[in-house]
Amino acid sequence: MTPPSRDSTSESDLDLDYKTAGFSKRLGFGRRPALVVIDFCHAYLDADSPLYAGVEDARVSSERLLRASRAAGIPIIHTRVEFQPDGANGGVFFRKVDALRCFIEGNPLGEPGPGLEPQPGEVVVTKQYASAFFGTSLASTLTALGVDTLIHAGVSTSGCVRATALDACQHGFVPIVVREAVGDRDQGVHDANLFDLDAKYADVVSEDETLAYLHGLD
Amino acid sequence: MTPPSRDSTSESDLDLDYKTAGFSKRLGFGRRPALVVIDFCHAYLDADSPLYAGVEDARVSSERLLRASRAAGIPIIHTRVEFQPDGANGGVFFRKVDALRCFIEGNPLGEPGPGLEPQPGEVVVTKQYASAFFGTSLASTLTALGVDTLIHAGVSTSGCVRATALDACQHGFVPIVVREAVGDRDQGVHDANLFDLDAKYADVVSEDETLAYLHGLD
Amino acid sequence: MTPPSRDSTSESDLDLDYKTAGFSKRLGFGRRPALVVIDFCHAYLDADSPLYAGVEDARVSSERLLRASRAAGIPIIHTRVEFQPDGANGGVFFRKVDALRCFIEGNPLGEPGPGLEPQPGEVVVTKQYASAFFGTSLASTLTALGVDTLIHAGVSTSGCVRATALDACQHGFVPIVVREAVGDRDQGVHDANLFDLDAKYADVVSEDETLAYLHGLD
Amino acid sequence: MTPPSRDSTSESDLDLDYKTAGFSKRLGFGRRPALVVIDFCHAYLDADSPLYAGVEDARVSSERLLRASRAAGIPIIHTRVEFQPDGANGGVFFRKVDALRCFIEGNPLGEPGPGLEPQPGEVVVTKQYASAFFGTSLASTLTALGVDTLIHAGVSTSGCVRATALDACQHGFVPIVVREAVGDRDQGVHDANLFDLDAKYADVVSEDETLAYLHGLD
Repeated sequence: MTPPSRDSTSESDLDLDYKTAGFSKRLGFGRRPALVVIDFCHAYLDADSPLYAGVEDARVSSERLLRASRAAGIPIIHTRVEFQPDGANGGVFFRKVDALRCFIEGNPLGEPGPGLEPQPGEVVVTKQYASAFFGTSLASTLTALGVDTLIHAGVSTSGCVRATALDACQHGFVPIVVREAVGDRDQGVHDANLFDLDAKYADVVSEDETLAYLHGLD
Repeated sequence: MTPPSRDSTSESDLDLDYKTAGFSKRLGFGRRPALVVIDFCHAYLDADSPLYAGVEDARVSSERLLRASRAAGIPIIHTRVEFQPDGANGGVFFRKVDALRCFIEGNPLGEPGPGLEPQPGEVVVTKQYASAFFGTSLASTLTALGVDTLIHAGVSTSGCVRATALDACQHGFVPIVVREAVGDRDQGVHDANLFDLDAKYADVVSEDETLAYLHGLD
Repeated sequence: MTPPSRDSTSESDLDLDYKTAGFSKRLGFGRRPALVVIDFCHAYLDADSPLYAGVEDARVSSERLLRASRAAGIPIIHTRVEFQPDGANGGVFFRKVDALRCFIEGNPLGEPGPGLEPQPGEVVVTKQYASAFFGTSLASTLTALGVDTLIHAGVSTSGCVRATALDACQHGFVPIVVREAVGDRDQGVHDANLFDLDAKYADVVSEDETLAYLHGLD
Repeated sequence: MTPPSRDSTSESDLDLDYKTAGFSKRLGFGRRPALVVIDFCHAYLDADSPLYAGVEDARVSSERLLRASRAAGIPIIHTRVEFQPDGANGGVFFRKVDALRCFIEGNPLGEPGPGLEPQPGEVVVTKQYASAFFGTSLASTLTALGVDTLIHAGVSTSGCVRATALDACQHGFVPIVVREAVGDRDQGVHDANLFDLDAKYADVVSEDETLAYLHGLD
């Protein structure tokens, strides 16, 4: 496969082209946010894992968001991937990506990263697919809670973060993707996906802006 | 937003990195394919449309796939986007992307491109979101038909094609994305999305390989 | 098939048995309701239709709910069933129920009943299955509007009304089923389904209580 | 609530009325079945459970279906209900039905009934709602396996069995409900729901017919 490359258009031209065409509008934070920390487990953090992504900075940013979200008292969701042995419940996705074998039940790589462990009362969503909404009751939980905005942290930008933010938008929630709190194994892939997300589905914002918003909630 | 760029890793290094990590396996064509032609309407083909994407080559490729699919007698799905006035049924997506106003009911930009008109007996899926599976009965139609493989043509690679192929994988269908038959307004964005799709969710294959497969069906 | 019958338990014993077991709690109206008028078309109202159900009283009640909802300014949803010729998009459901042929596109039996026509700005959901949520973007529309409560009117109690109220509950909305505004071709079937709905998924309430609630909204 | 009653129409008249109107067609078993055993846990079998339903006969019938399905080598799905403490992931359904507290994680009432324990290689679906398809990846698993027919056993007929069979139909699978293998706390409620299922969504068949079908698979 040809990996991502940028040759046809300069950066600023591309931004301008998208804005003129009618992409990239700001949705803005809503009034009832929830935080979702997506799949941030040892598989992405341990140097000897096949999925190691070098995303310690994003882990630290996610930890700060978790703390601020707990202080603000908003609903907090943690997602984790888990498959039965042999991927009996993994369908086509499990066949496509051998690396998903890290998430067969019992594998310690599936445990949450340091500082990101769920606390009592926080929702833990177990999933088999990229989107945290797909094949889970996440949308129902958020709707029953009256949530209107979903703040995204976690990994990976090109995989489960993008798929989740896409689905958040499709399900009727404002997706906020916190730039520093999401990460990917390759910087170019990370950037390309933040570009698409910001153009079409989500507001990509800084951690600072998000923390200020959380602090401002009553 | 920073647009996509490639600076951290050379192309071949990135491919190797992904393969070693356990991405990018071939799923292979199944036995009961269907073709989906995604949103290939005047909005992307007419030079004075805000969504004009310069994808005439992809249109011609899609037309060849349509002819071969009709000759092979496989199910054919066409998708179209349509919103009520003011986007009453468009939710967050309609708020995010002003360009979606092209698809308010009655706008001729929403009509299928030349050579891509549905024929009697072919399924037409009307949708409001990026994925052709989201908020539609497409998965049910494919399952009831016994389809196991969904061949993707249409626009745009970074938008509705990727969202649909992701969902095809999530729903249990083998997604085949035909490289020449999908298109986007920017080459770098197009390439970056084909890279992600091929790594994680779909087999990205050539038109030639797809036509040979369709000709070989009994 | 054995049709519904009541022989094992008297009415009051059954109510008591359910309450003691922990069913039938009141959810209560929320703060952001929407009204859904389900499939209330000529197919159920015209005496020569195979689906004629003798539900003129429910139509009149639904009309009163529509007027009160418009006066209260809450979102209003109308659902309609429509299939392509030969049920190409009707899947297993279309194979099971021959009567669904009334809803092939172009059949005037699919048109809304007198007094129930959608007005501009109201959402019309076209569906192929029993639940108004299944294969449609209804949940997304409601979530994007911040709706927390869905008031149900329409037909039939045992079919599309029950399936929709079940899904409303599953999706995170409080389902209110207005007893006088829903109807079915057989009184015993109607009653049996209201019993199940009230026990497990929805609050079954009177038209009077619903109108009082709507009048009281600011 | 008025519980189910039958006063308007005699049994045979109702059957005739439905058949004439175009309900109740036979779908017939397909070629790639799977068995689903729905929620058949101690909560329904232990005499001191609030959900005790007196369905030992259905348990024995389900056990026979399990054995025949294992012998035939078809995919087997077990569903179970599980909520986090306080129903944090239970939404509106958990608020409506107090009896669902039996299914908070760790409660032994949620364990499978005797003779119904999952074996290695069988899929276990954990759910929070009535339908085994809702908020789970069941449909994806079945589609990826090429299943076309879903044989239903378990409890309760009016609750999770009906909701699952409805969704099986909506998702494109032929739902087979095995009369002796499903059960409910009240006979009249059980009968009323089998009537609706057979009329609209599923084939309700005998255990004998199902066993003969399973024995005949190659």
